[in-house]
Amino acid sequence: MSKPRPLSGFPEFLPAQRSVEVEVLRTLSRTFELHGFTGIETRAVEPMDQLLRKGDTSKEVYVLKRLQDTEAGKDAGMGLHFDLTVPFARYVLENAGKLEFPFRRYQIQKVWRGERPQEGRFREFTQADIDIVGQGELPFHHDVEVTRVMLEALSQLTFLPGFRLQVNNRKLLQGFYVGLELADTDEAMRLVDKLDKLPEEKVREMLVAEAGLSDEQADKVLGLARICTPDDSFVEQVRALGVEHELLTQGLDELAALMRACQDIVTDTVRIEADLKIARGLDYYTGTVFETRLDGYESLGSICSGGRYDALATDGRTTYPGVGISLGVSRVLVPLLSKGHLVADRQVPSAVLVALTDEESRAGSTAVATALRTRGVPCEVAATASKFGKQIRFAERRGIPYVWFTQADGSHQVKDIRSGDQVAADPATWTPPTEDLRPQVVTHIPQKEIQ
Amino acid sequence: MSKPRPLSGFPEFLPAQRSVEVEVLRTLSRTFELHGFTGIETRAVEPMDQLLRKGDTSKEVYVLKRLQDTEAGKDAGMGLHFDLTVPFARYVLENAGKLEFPFRRYQIQKVWRGERPQEGRFREFTQADIDIVGQGELPFHHDVEVTRVMLEALSQLTFLPGFRLQVNNRKLLQGFYVGLELADTDEAMRLVDKLDKLPEEKVREMLVAEAGLSDEQADKVLGLARICTPDDSFVEQVRALGVEHELLTQGLDELAALMRACQDIVTDTVRIEADLKIARGLDYYTGTVFETRLDGYESLGSICSGGRYDALATDGRTTYPGVGISLGVSRVLVPLLSKGHLVADRQVPSAVLVALTDEESRAGSTAVATALRTRGVPCEVAATASKFGKQIRFAERRGIPYVWFTQADGSHQVKDIRSGDQVAADPATWTPPTEDLRPQVVTHIPQKEIQ
Repeated sequence: MSKPRPLSGFPEFLPAQRSVEVEVLRTLSRTFELHGFTGIETRAVEPMDQLLRKGDTSKEVYVLKRLQDTEAGKDAGMGLHFDLTVPFARYVLENAGKLEFPFRRYQIQKVWRGERPQEGRFREFTQADIDIVGQGELPFHHDVEVTRVMLEALSQLTFLPGFRLQVNNRKLLQGFYVGLELADTDEAMRLVDKLDKLPEEKVREMLVAEAGLSDEQADKVLGLARICTPDDSFVEQVRALGVEHELLTQGLDELAALMRACQDIVTDTVRIEADLKIARGLDYYTGTVFETRLDGYESLGSICSGGRYDALATDGRTTYPGVGISLGVSRVLVPLLSKGHLVADRQVPSAVLVALTDEESRAGSTAVATALRTRGVPCEVAATASKFGKQIRFAERRGIPYVWFTQADGSHQVKDIRSGDQVAADPATWTPPTEDLRPQVVTHIPQKEIQ
Repeated sequence: MSKPRPLSGFPEFLPAQRSVEVEVLRTLSRTFELHGFTGIETRAVEPMDQLLRKGDTSKEVYVLKRLQDTEAGKDAGMGLHFDLTVPFARYVLENAGKLEFPFRRYQIQKVWRGERPQEGRFREFTQADIDIVGQGELPFHHDVEVTRVMLEALSQLTFLPGFRLQVNNRKLLQGFYVGLELADTDEAMRLVDKLDKLPEEKVREMLVAEAGLSDEQADKVLGLARICTPDDSFVEQVRALGVEHELLTQGLDELAALMRACQDIVTDTVRIEADLKIARGLDYYTGTVFETRLDGYESLGSICSGGRYDALATDGRTTYPGVGISLGVSRVLVPLLSKGHLVADRQVPSAVLVALTDEESRAGSTAVATALRTRGVPCEVAATASKFGKQIRFAERRGIPYVWFTQADGSHQVKDIRSGDQVAADPATWTPPTEDLRPQVVTHIPQKEIQ
């Protein structure tokens, strides 16, 4: 077999890169579980009719067929899921009788999209979703809850750059547009969503030409979109635009409550903004909406998005409202890892290499390793009884911080090969500092990361 | 949307079942990492030419096509992996220059096979593989290492029934058959592999009729297959059959060394046997071979299998020998979970439900929860300020062991709802017993499990 080449759009990690991903996923899971979120997994496939319900993504689905069915062009009627929301909604309906509501779940899985690979877009990637789902109703305080949980989860990833969670509320937008008497509020929302990519002047033209807004209406719509505050002071600014509507008031109240309830966890690196241009155009959100920007990596787009659905799922009789947020784990990690901005300080979990004097003493070295492992110290025994200098270089190449030697008289020494310090040690009691037990993530993020 | 129905062959777990799986996967990962195995993941897809190299599984591959390519019958030239060995061999070749050898890796992922679903066979299932791969060479002591690591990993799953790891060596079989002057040793090995499913008398007939053995040769082949010892005493029994060959001697030496090196970790529930009927018929093993039976669940077949490959991968110039073993996580868990023989004692990670006196005090209850979480106590705040009795029943239904109350005077009490004990507690210091921090796996395995 000749040397295989990577498949475009299907990123894979080397061991030290994967260590970073594992650290991220463990931190996320731990935070989600601390907040009572249950981890579930759904199968990778869904029936095609489920996947095609959201019209605009249908072209991106990978359809499965069994190899022996090739000739007939027959497929299995199933495709790979392209997000974790569609399978979760199906899981909730399928198991509604066996779940307790409100149901908090987190789900960290790969998803697949058959789209053309490009910077920041993958065909296989990992998402980490949290959602809270109610049966019939779901009080607004759960919107605050998912916001706080994701803020906390992201802030635990201390090796990542800072970030900015941008929050808005669809009721606020919808109420403002209805209050302004816009003919087509959906179209206006879709165009405002383009402020990310297009200059304001261009969006104004489209609002007038495509959505039929008057100049005055366009001014107000863009005035609203310009409002962005780190606290609840946006309310006053919106009120100053002089538009009135009951739904607008509801949206303002909700967003203000959310902003106030999150102030205690804001820091220099963990920020939240009421950003009134955020609309999440094509998705079916009905209240709170989220996007998130990573400092210095704004070109990645939103790395963490979501919102409130009044009907995450429905079986016709019961409706299941939900609020959730989805972190694009691969979207963040693949660029940072492939540029070397993040890396782990070792390629293996081992904190200790137990050196081998000769092949006959392998059982003795294995016994040392076994003793260390009982206290949770990951270690490996040297593969061959080469010269100690060579065994130390072997450890160095892998980033293993300690090498353990058993002397001829049966006494033991352990060497920190970073400092060169070597001390007497007892396999029954010695433990390295906690930070050496697991690979550490090292950041090499340029001061001015320009993408 | 009407109520969705499960897809046959694609098992999914309810939250309390998934907790058991998470516990299994965490325990496996921890054990593998303690032994210096690096966790990697490979993409779910491989090019079709990679997947079709093993002829006999080709019909089971799920081929991918993008939805918009449907009409042309065009597929993406890729399929879902059906095991973790093919992708791992590809990963080793692709990254050989960046890996350190011997390379110890573990890999826990889903795999897919388009076969007809039946008892114990799935279309999507999870495997946990460990392998050690060398560049050019891989000393035999690594065969002992993977055996010990998997024995230890399985023995850490204390809620599972006991198990029996059955080991043999292809060199032993091959050497014995060549020493016996069999015309077609592969065919003999393939037939001996059927002793699992067919009576000995039937296999004897086939050995004579299909593989052309004489009665005397068939006697010896079956005599060898009958040998099964918990230690290295099999050597003497094989020698007594009077067959001589250099490869046989090599196989006997290796297997005896492995059996001796594992005696210290054998217990009543964790057993190892030199079982000379184990052949792993169609796979390309060249030395040690493994199978594993779960006590009381023998009808599941081997739950954990593997062996030594002299060429796990090769690029024509360099060969990468490997030894590994693969645990069928779904094969074990799906039947045990679906029969209710294993279950977790709660549906949520929360150890504490923080009760809510009224909606106005939500911030106070959230502050209690935040304080508990800083010490790693998973908790959730009650969804609604219903009567305390109702909040306690809510906790009961989810299996949350503790309910926290904040009194009107600002003091706190915590109630263990299993015992009814209620004591004063401080959110800044109170911690439940360690075993209450995470869901516990409860076993309900019938004394006489007959399948």
